[in-house]
Amino acid sequence: MAKKSSRRLFIPSQDIFFRVFKMQNLKESEAVALSGPFPYVLVTSLDKNGRPNAMGVAWVTRTSFDPFLILISIDHRRYSYEGIKMHKEFVVNYPSIDQSDAAVICGSKSGHDGDKIKLAGLKLVDSVSVKVPTIEGVTVAFECEVVDQLETGDHTVFVGKVVGTSGNPEKSRHLYVSSKFQLFGMDGNEVPA
Amino acid sequence: MAKKSSRRLFIPSQDIFFRVFKMQNLKESEAVALSGPFPYVLVTSLDKNGRPNAMGVAWVTRTSFDPFLILISIDHRRYSYEGIKMHKEFVVNYPSIDQSDAAVICGSKSGHDGDKIKLAGLKLVDSVSVKVPTIEGVTVAFECEVVDQLETGDHTVFVGKVVGTSGNPEKSRHLYVSSKFQLFGMDGNEVPA
Repeated sequence: MAKKSSRRLFIPSQDIFFRVFKMQNLKESEAVALSGPFPYVLVTSLDKNGRPNAMGVAWVTRTSFDPFLILISIDHRRYSYEGIKMHKEFVVNYPSIDQSDAAVICGSKSGHDGDKIKLAGLKLVDSVSVKVPTIEGVTVAFECEVVDQLETGDHTVFVGKVVGTSGNPEKSRHLYVSSKFQLFGMDGNEVPA
Repeated sequence: MAKKSSRRLFIPSQDIFFRVFKMQNLKESEAVALSGPFPYVLVTSLDKNGRPNAMGVAWVTRTSFDPFLILISIDHRRYSYEGIKMHKEFVVNYPSIDQSDAAVICGSKSGHDGDKIKLAGLKLVDSVSVKVPTIEGVTVAFECEVVDQLETGDHTVFVGKVVGTSGNPEKSRHLYVSSKFQLFGMDGNEVPA
């Protein structure tokens, strides 16, 4: 039987208690960094000449069960912005972890400067239900028709109705991105509830 | 020195090539599962009586650099929906991994049925810039004033201007959620570009 300890229990002082639990005011950049990493997608679209482009996007979310809607938030300065407005279609592609080099190129170069898809070595395949092509080999792709849009500051939200889905279930590990544009492959540890 | 193998090199047939690289059509539920896990937040708001509520939300994203805007997508049936419409404020709290039990309760119970914050054992602290309180001990919290909204199918997008940020940088590991409402703590493995 273990000898009963004669030491007093450690009781945290009020000061330590507040140091642990008090919320700190943060700068915006610190707060954004703490909220990441975020799922990272490549949005394909057609430009005014019908040429496909792929841009890196982290500002994406689902927004309705029925109908099945997804929204993306696109900077007004981005090359893809005019094309999505014109053609009212886009595809949300979740690049697999083996496509990280291409994903970096699509997220750091501009379509204003040339054919990023060629530069990144990506292959395109016909989508099921839209003219905009899907990127071959991605984890999953959502084909969208724009049904609404809303200007939000320096971006525009495009709301897309999902009209086709394809993917590669055996490549389930897709990419996440930090606020400093570092790409991550995320290993999830399930938390017991 | 190893004996040179006399076996012929294995050349994948065209059939295998297509089996590896061809995209599969997926059901919507399969596609959604493949795109997760998603960052998981607790949105605090006030109800019509000024009582705070916290709901689990995975449909959240930033939507403008300047002004700093965040949007959340809220189901019309959720208890928090009317309160956010009325008070035009909400706080996006990223629960830390040590708050997973409380995060499950806030994401699986309804504010229609009682005080979830009490049930979950969460403590609230005054926000810096809005009346809606912040959840103590979260990784990071974004205080938002609603500047616009858009109905998207069975949800409404609330666009929030971020007017305050607080957090606990030492609790950087926050929660992610799968499409089947399993919670994950994510360990990021940086992908070299």
